[in-house]
Amino acid sequence: MFKKVLVANRGDIAARMMRVLREMGIASVAIYSSADAQSLHVQLADEAICVGGPKATDSYLNMQNILSAAVITGAEAIYPGYGFLAENSMFAQMVADLNLVFIGPKPETIDLMGNKANAREYMRQAEIPVIPGSTGFLHDATEAQSVAQQVGLPVLLKAAAGGGGKGMRMIKTLAELPGKFVEAQREAQQAFGNGAMYLEKVLTNVRHIEVQILRDNFGHAVYLPERNCSLQRNNQKVLEESPASGITAKQRAYLGELAVKAADTLDYRGTGTIEFLEDTDGSFYFMEMNTRIQVEHPVTEMVTGLDLLQFQIMIAANRELNLKQTDIQIHGHAVEVRLNAERPARNFAPSAGTIEYLYLPTGGNGVRIDTDLFTGGKVQPFYDSMLGKIIASAPTRTATFTRLQRLLDELVIQGVETNAEFQRALVHDEQVLNGQFNTKYLEDAFLPKWQQTLTQAQDIEITQEVAGNGTLS
Amino acid sequence: MFKKVLVANRGDIAARMMRVLREMGIASVAIYSSADAQSLHVQLADEAICVGGPKATDSYLNMQNILSAAVITGAEAIYPGYGFLAENSMFAQMVADLNLVFIGPKPETIDLMGNKANAREYMRQAEIPVIPGSTGFLHDATEAQSVAQQVGLPVLLKAAAGGGGKGMRMIKTLAELPGKFVEAQREAQQAFGNGAMYLEKVLTNVRHIEVQILRDNFGHAVYLPERNCSLQRNNQKVLEESPASGITAKQRAYLGELAVKAADTLDYRGTGTIEFLEDTDGSFYFMEMNTRIQVEHPVTEMVTGLDLLQFQIMIAANRELNLKQTDIQIHGHAVEVRLNAERPARNFAPSAGTIEYLYLPTGGNGVRIDTDLFTGGKVQPFYDSMLGKIIASAPTRTATFTRLQRLLDELVIQGVETNAEFQRALVHDEQVLNGQFNTKYLEDAFLPKWQQTLTQAQDIEITQEVAGNGTLS
Repeated sequence: MFKKVLVANRGDIAARMMRVLREMGIASVAIYSSADAQSLHVQLADEAICVGGPKATDSYLNMQNILSAAVITGAEAIYPGYGFLAENSMFAQMVADLNLVFIGPKPETIDLMGNKANAREYMRQAEIPVIPGSTGFLHDATEAQSVAQQVGLPVLLKAAAGGGGKGMRMIKTLAELPGKFVEAQREAQQAFGNGAMYLEKVLTNVRHIEVQILRDNFGHAVYLPERNCSLQRNNQKVLEESPASGITAKQRAYLGELAVKAADTLDYRGTGTIEFLEDTDGSFYFMEMNTRIQVEHPVTEMVTGLDLLQFQIMIAANRELNLKQTDIQIHGHAVEVRLNAERPARNFAPSAGTIEYLYLPTGGNGVRIDTDLFTGGKVQPFYDSMLGKIIASAPTRTATFTRLQRLLDELVIQGVETNAEFQRALVHDEQVLNGQFNTKYLEDAFLPKWQQTLTQAQDIEITQEVAGNGTLS
Repeated sequence: MFKKVLVANRGDIAARMMRVLREMGIASVAIYSSADAQSLHVQLADEAICVGGPKATDSYLNMQNILSAAVITGAEAIYPGYGFLAENSMFAQMVADLNLVFIGPKPETIDLMGNKANAREYMRQAEIPVIPGSTGFLHDATEAQSVAQQVGLPVLLKAAAGGGGKGMRMIKTLAELPGKFVEAQREAQQAFGNGAMYLEKVLTNVRHIEVQILRDNFGHAVYLPERNCSLQRNNQKVLEESPASGITAKQRAYLGELAVKAADTLDYRGTGTIEFLEDTDGSFYFMEMNTRIQVEHPVTEMVTGLDLLQFQIMIAANRELNLKQTDIQIHGHAVEVRLNAERPARNFAPSAGTIEYLYLPTGGNGVRIDTDLFTGGKVQPFYDSMLGKIIASAPTRTATFTRLQRLLDELVIQGVETNAEFQRALVHDEQVLNGQFNTKYLEDAFLPKWQQTLTQAQDIEITQEVAGNGTLS
């Protein structure tokens, strides 16, 4: 087993890994930016090294400094967490080149799954169902028209090397395809130096269902109960749960076996998640694979009783995965809400500041709060706005939501604006409680409704102000 | 189901019941003393009524005021928790006389089990093994001598109506028995107006093993995995765990069935705990029954996944216990340490004050902190010194202690002195970690050892002070 591990991250995932390492008897090294000197992950570590200034590019993305910190402290392995360098294959390769262990999959796996077009093509060849669309890359607009006709409109034209919406076009009629194809290809060529295009059918009314797997260096793999992460805003998950409502044991096994098949084909190492889209007809399509631990891993941990971070360490240390598929049982239900430093009423603008008062509800079974918040701690404006996660579990889905409602009612955070009030509304929403939502529900239905209640509340406030103001009567 | 329940208690058990009621959709009423107006249990309740001054006799033991509060608020049931009126049969009867539900067993059960001599005799007749000793009451010193000779010395002579050590004598030789018998009987007569005496063999090197049962109004009962509560000081439990090291599945079933048999014989209602002494030869003897929820119930909840407080409500509301014995599985291990406002280095003198800073470690599976502490909250000098419990669970006993060590390392409480440092030492003690301890271990072995380390630490401090003080060199 490793004697010392460097955690190349910050925030609650870094704090949590420090705790896992402590319990495993492994010395921990924190890295931190000059803004984070007092952070919890630094306080929980055995050693800590400042790797640069507040900007992530100067510190948490500063590969040279992070690698130097690992060498200086004699760490044998580097844990990337999520975000920052977790899916940077160059970093993973540099770690390996220093004869250190990158706690995650092989660099080539990260690379392959990081390119969405390649991942799609790879999975298609591995006979994992992918979203209907082109096979390989499109030669020209004529081929695109033929594929579009075949899979049915609307389709999404995408740049193979793409990202951030560049070189992407929504196609609603065959007639508009040739023009948009040329346009998108030119944009892709300019942005990525690569004009290769592919297209996918646009699926509406789908759910985001994902399956986490664990696989060791000896080819042994298991899948864990699926998560429903359909409640999203700006492609960011907001609330996640496990198991997913309406998924049968048969579907669970089908998806799990698909995920293990994908992992086997990749000769995958560590924890990974295969994200699927579930169509209304019960079909599942591979969407992408995340080659790291995910923010929503706690719901899986709560329903299975497993510690996934501990497994990440064990697998990276070349231990055999001591789990059989039949060992994995689902105990009840778990739901997580993400707690962000943001102002939902101001279009979710990020917030920052010092935590002046904090009350985290504890007590009883089925309560878990993963966060690096503490009274007096600082919420920095430089990084991702996530402050942590509030997770509830209970024997039934209904009881889990009731518990989560209570936890959000009891939570007190002063000094920094958060999305707690928004999450409180979300976990009281009838359709959320009934499990009736797709990936568009939060943005298209819930959010407008919620914003209206805000406006009404403001109207009432203004009316009361006017009524109470004698000079205007 | 009840619409409203009054919680006749304070502190963490009251706070926890408020949360259970909230999750069950039942309105809650808090009672509080004038000192406790800002307490968490008051803040978590739907309604709160001040029932008297700071002294417990004026408020939490003030039956008239508590019953009035229940009637005024329209509560249908009263939850007593532990301590205060939880084992007061007169109170239970008064509740029933008002046509309200006392959430606990029948008054006569409380009464019967509250008198240790009667309880012993009752269990003996029910063929539950009791500590070797007299059958019924002793007629005179001659009979006492004969029984003492039969069971073996030393024996403990006890007043049937006894309590607080009054009318109790340790007997080491047959010769001293007649004199001490007369002395003890006279003392008992004076103290309780009742000179009835009985005797029990003194068992040394025993463990305190207890079994919690649940039983409904329809005669359906289950037992839960045993707890080892042998680490005690002044007959107060300090650390509790479940399951108990070294107890086999066969012993577990044997003890569990004994406990259910006792409960059946009593036609018991609700949660109750049968406390056994385990002798070195593997014999178990009935010690006493607690007719209420116990402080250490969280370890049972963590290993079973059940919510015992919810079951208390359900049973009191005349619901059938929807649990079969085979439903009850043990998932890993759980250990609880009690967090008290006291100064272990000053002979455990109680402390009080305002919580100036609080950090309760959260995050990950297997972490539970049941407490009513919050930053700014007051720890009163008027009540029991318990501030709450820190509970860890993990797949193995070793991993559970490792987790508990970490939790105690991370805990920060400023403003009130606590026993956290003492508990930290206890969970690092080799014999505790090996499960090698009896009911005398903490007081006879651990405590002197610990006090010595304190003295040494003080010596070192003084030496350093002297060394560092130039004027003395």
